[in-house]
Amino acid sequence: MGFDAIEIITTKRDRRELSTAQIDWVIDAYTRGGVADEQMSALAMAILLNGMNRREIADWTLAMIRSGERMDWSALDRPTADKHSTGGVGDKITLPLAPLVAACGAYVPQLSGRGLGHTGGTLDKLESIPGWRASLSNDEMLHVIRTAGAVVCAAGSGLAPADKKLYALRDVTGTVESIPLIASSIMSKKIAEGTGSLVLDVKVGSGAFMKNVDDARELAETMVALGGDAGVRTVALLTAMDRPLGRAVGNALEVAESVEVLAGGGPSDVVELTVRLAREMLEAAAVPGAKDPEQALKDGSAMDAWRRMIGAQGGDPDAPLPVAAETMDVVAPSSGVLRRLDALSVGVAAWRLGAGRERKEDAVSFGAGITLHAKPGDTVRAGQPLMTLHADEPGRFERALAVLEGGYEIGEVADPALFPLVIDRITEGDLARD
Amino acid sequence: MGFDAIEIITTKRDRRELSTAQIDWVIDAYTRGGVADEQMSALAMAILLNGMNRREIADWTLAMIRSGERMDWSALDRPTADKHSTGGVGDKITLPLAPLVAACGAYVPQLSGRGLGHTGGTLDKLESIPGWRASLSNDEMLHVIRTAGAVVCAAGSGLAPADKKLYALRDVTGTVESIPLIASSIMSKKIAEGTGSLVLDVKVGSGAFMKNVDDARELAETMVALGGDAGVRTVALLTAMDRPLGRAVGNALEVAESVEVLAGGGPSDVVELTVRLAREMLEAAAVPGAKDPEQALKDGSAMDAWRRMIGAQGGDPDAPLPVAAETMDVVAPSSGVLRRLDALSVGVAAWRLGAGRERKEDAVSFGAGITLHAKPGDTVRAGQPLMTLHADEPGRFERALAVLEGGYEIGEVADPALFPLVIDRITEGDLARD
Repeated sequence: MGFDAIEIITTKRDRRELSTAQIDWVIDAYTRGGVADEQMSALAMAILLNGMNRREIADWTLAMIRSGERMDWSALDRPTADKHSTGGVGDKITLPLAPLVAACGAYVPQLSGRGLGHTGGTLDKLESIPGWRASLSNDEMLHVIRTAGAVVCAAGSGLAPADKKLYALRDVTGTVESIPLIASSIMSKKIAEGTGSLVLDVKVGSGAFMKNVDDARELAETMVALGGDAGVRTVALLTAMDRPLGRAVGNALEVAESVEVLAGGGPSDVVELTVRLAREMLEAAAVPGAKDPEQALKDGSAMDAWRRMIGAQGGDPDAPLPVAAETMDVVAPSSGVLRRLDALSVGVAAWRLGAGRERKEDAVSFGAGITLHAKPGDTVRAGQPLMTLHADEPGRFERALAVLEGGYEIGEVADPALFPLVIDRITEGDLARD
Repeated sequence: MGFDAIEIITTKRDRRELSTAQIDWVIDAYTRGGVADEQMSALAMAILLNGMNRREIADWTLAMIRSGERMDWSALDRPTADKHSTGGVGDKITLPLAPLVAACGAYVPQLSGRGLGHTGGTLDKLESIPGWRASLSNDEMLHVIRTAGAVVCAAGSGLAPADKKLYALRDVTGTVESIPLIASSIMSKKIAEGTGSLVLDVKVGSGAFMKNVDDARELAETMVALGGDAGVRTVALLTAMDRPLGRAVGNALEVAESVEVLAGGGPSDVVELTVRLAREMLEAAAVPGAKDPEQALKDGSAMDAWRRMIGAQGGDPDAPLPVAAETMDVVAPSSGVLRRLDALSVGVAAWRLGAGRERKEDAVSFGAGITLHAKPGDTVRAGQPLMTLHADEPGRFERALAVLEGGYEIGEVADPALFPLVIDRITEGDLARD
């Protein structure tokens, strides 16, 4: 096809619409090296500033899917369901959710990622379990899913390679924050993964990628439309990330909290969101005769699925989890009600304690992180520990404390501006077709 | 300094102002390889779409000048004057202008370029003179200027290397058409060249880079401001490029026409613009007791300066110029007045005949081009030759004729929408300080 990169860049630069053929050509040529990085970054900046319409985003996503393999779960005897979170602080929901939904009757093939910046990664968390392996072949994935009903593992390099290359480029060229590019990046991987249904957890607030409800809604609507266009039943929840989720932030700390939830306990916000997302997934997957998720938490079947899933991936669900060598308490400076506890401050503090990476090639500390002893709305007394910091070296506390300064506030009532846990729900029926 | 490329890209992406320190850092780091091409192209696209203010453009220009050497003509005993044209079809003005201004009393150190696309390059034209050399050392330049009063040669690689690298990048990333980047590219080279005064010929119309008067005025004002900020007395003319300049388009054809002008003849538009630009240059350079340019054309002193200048660069001013092997006439299809003769069509046709390059590494044909036998407003008879095409191979005529189709029109009067030869004049006094 007679396209060239400059013509495509200037089309978007001049606020004109890219044709399907132009998008197919540029994604294919970029994947194979025929379009240079400096051309793709200029195009990404033009897309970030001038946008893409629904048709362009759908074409862009399909072209990225076609750049690699597409998985196929049609040989399985139950519907498949998947969830994707845009990432937050203390967001360990995938850990209890995948085995819970499996216990209720769906198969859950869940490809996950590693931590980026102040947000944790599901694979980093699970790797704190001794022996657990994130990398599986397609045959091993199928074996785990048949054994446990759920598998959480790393995406193989064959899925949407155009997205991998483009994401790495956007990361160094200031072109991450584009809703069309974020939506197509997420959805190309999820659609290539071959799930029949998908529930999106779009986080909103300081600790999330989307800082306000309008942006989060736009991203959610874009992704729901893309899922529908590709034949994947997709629903999105907008959920609160102005404060951390649960009481544990950090890899092994979050695994322990997830096991509490699977054992029928755990913090109320984690339980509520896990159950809500499970119900959405079972509905989207249209599982016939699905078990109720609350029941599956009570009767131990979710915990059984968890133990089978961890074991099938080489992990020992009974092994003690790594613990950080050093701890330090942060105490309440006065008595009152915890008005707010900023998700971003807590996330960056946990990152600095060692739970996240400075550079891509760094290892994370499994034991590092923060245990929260109070959440917004809780009554606290002066001198009472508000949180406990965990780190492998005491030298890490100072920089974590610095970022926590101003990250919490004690007053008379919880900040009325805090989001409800679930802010909104978006389905294909809510979208205006354009 | 603690900057990083992503922070600088996102500053401009988010429509914020770049600081002087940020601009200095990014230009220096890009020149030395610390900022990658894919980062600079994203920044260039953000600049193209979000703009830069006067202070940012001045800082950007100064940073590019500082990336290399700056020439110094202060040892000369007369003021220096320079001219820059943004490029057009048949724009050979530098050829008669440089020796003419030298003959009137200024020194003219003129660094020029090669042809790009449908616009010709001064160096390509002069190279059609047997023996003439474009590449001179700084000492050779000084020798030529002392011998002839004027020198026209290629810029050394030491002048504004950041601009050279950035221009090559913009050329392949759809980021050429940015007034701040065009203005800083031109002015960084001209200021580094060390001239004391500068006259800008900003072409407007189909054959020019700027297609309309508003864009051309914005570019001219930006460049005049940059010149003034750098202590170079700068004035700009906006001039017509909706039809070709003169009657010759092509390398040797334009040299011949330039020699006609120096001999006191030549087409009236070329003579008028050459004399006007010479007066502007002499005024900007404040040459004491300057000779009148019309007088210098009449008394042979401009021709003498031309012959000395060509000879001092190895050329033989009396040698026959190259002639193309093949010619073809294009005749008027009807009788009437030539309403319009589109500059772009004629420029692209001459390019296809061999006067320009397909790729940077190609050689140009010295003899190829077009001789115009009628200009807009001229009365023509059906069957009379409108123009003669010149090419080295007859196979080139067909593609040239195709682009000329619709490029001219015969009617009752010249198109009243044609620009006057000089549309406007812009000086520092016309600019609002911001």
